[in-house]
Amino acid sequence: MKARIKITLKNGVLDPQGKAIANALGALGFDGVDGVRQGKYIELELSESDPKRAEAEVKAMCEQLLANTVIENYQFELEPA
Amino acid sequence: MKARIKITLKNGVLDPQGKAIANALGALGFDGVDGVRQGKYIELELSESDPKRAEAEVKAMCEQLLANTVIENYQFELEPA
Repeated sequence: MKARIKITLKNGVLDPQGKAIANALGALGFDGVDGVRQGKYIELELSESDPKRAEAEVKAMCEQLLANTVIENYQFELEPA
Repeated sequence: MKARIKITLKNGVLDPQGKAIANALGALGFDGVDGVRQGKYIELELSESDPKRAEAEVKAMCEQLLANTVIENYQFELEPA
């Protein structure tokens, strides 16, 4: 089973990396950009094939390691192998 | 219009960050992980509201700045504001 996880900064948390991207896009002549937020994207290959158990496992991984839940949100979707 | 961009390493490109995550997950007791790939996730707020033009604009941004197309693939989806 495959898990695709998106980790994004919570609203209100400063995002200097996103700011740098916005500035660089402006410098390249893209003016229609009102905001940029950068996050992380992680793909996991799981040997677990039961969707319920895989979901619980990925949730635990996000809480314990992948996301800093003080400042970050995570979302994931599972896809059968 | 909102654009959600996923940037991932191409197959065959070494991913030390993904490897580090896999090791850390193993150390935490998650054994069912066969592979981890880490990528980037970027959300853009665009003032452009025409989907065709927004698509062309985001594609140009990815090619010119956001993704290193030698080693990375990108995918994006647009969402009306």
